[in-house]
Amino acid sequence: MFVIMVYDVGEKRVAKMLKTGRKYLNWVQNSVLEGQLSPGLYAKLKSEVSKILDEKEDSVIFYTWRTEQYTKREILGLERGAIDYFV
Amino acid sequence: MFVIMVYDVGEKRVAKMLKTGRKYLNWVQNSVLEGQLSPGLYAKLKSEVSKILDEKEDSVIFYTWRTEQYTKREILGLERGAIDYFV
Repeated sequence: MFVIMVYDVGEKRVAKMLKTGRKYLNWVQNSVLEGQLSPGLYAKLKSEVSKILDEKEDSVIFYTWRTEQYTKREILGLERGAIDYFV
Repeated sequence: MFVIMVYDVGEKRVAKMLKTGRKYLNWVQNSVLEGQLSPGLYAKLKSEVSKILDEKEDSVIFYTWRTEQYTKREILGLERGAIDYFV
């Protein structure tokens, strides 16, 4: 499955959240990561994220889909992380 | 079409980028917006964004797809913007 993760967390947890995200996904932009994951790894990622986040302050959104067939990705300006998933 | 916009721009341009994004989409999280747009409005949004951004410093990514059928959205922690697109 393809996963986009966007996070908005308190400053104290930013570094840890990014580090955890990068264990599973590729960093593409400030607080945005993307990648292909098995459902099992996706579950592990969510489990790790939920341990880090403060539910009263933080927000992490995951967009997932099985196929990239219907998805397009366009970038304006800089390509910060190198990604080759999308054609 | 359904659009996710994520931006990572210089501090001077953050407010303008957010304001422009909100003209077309719903804010959901720090530097993330989502929404349904016609292809014409999507083109207008990209045109406005490209006028604001500094191509040497900024990065704006758009993910678009025609159907939400294959997409899932999961949130951990706070729901910052109220969104009812995804089931």
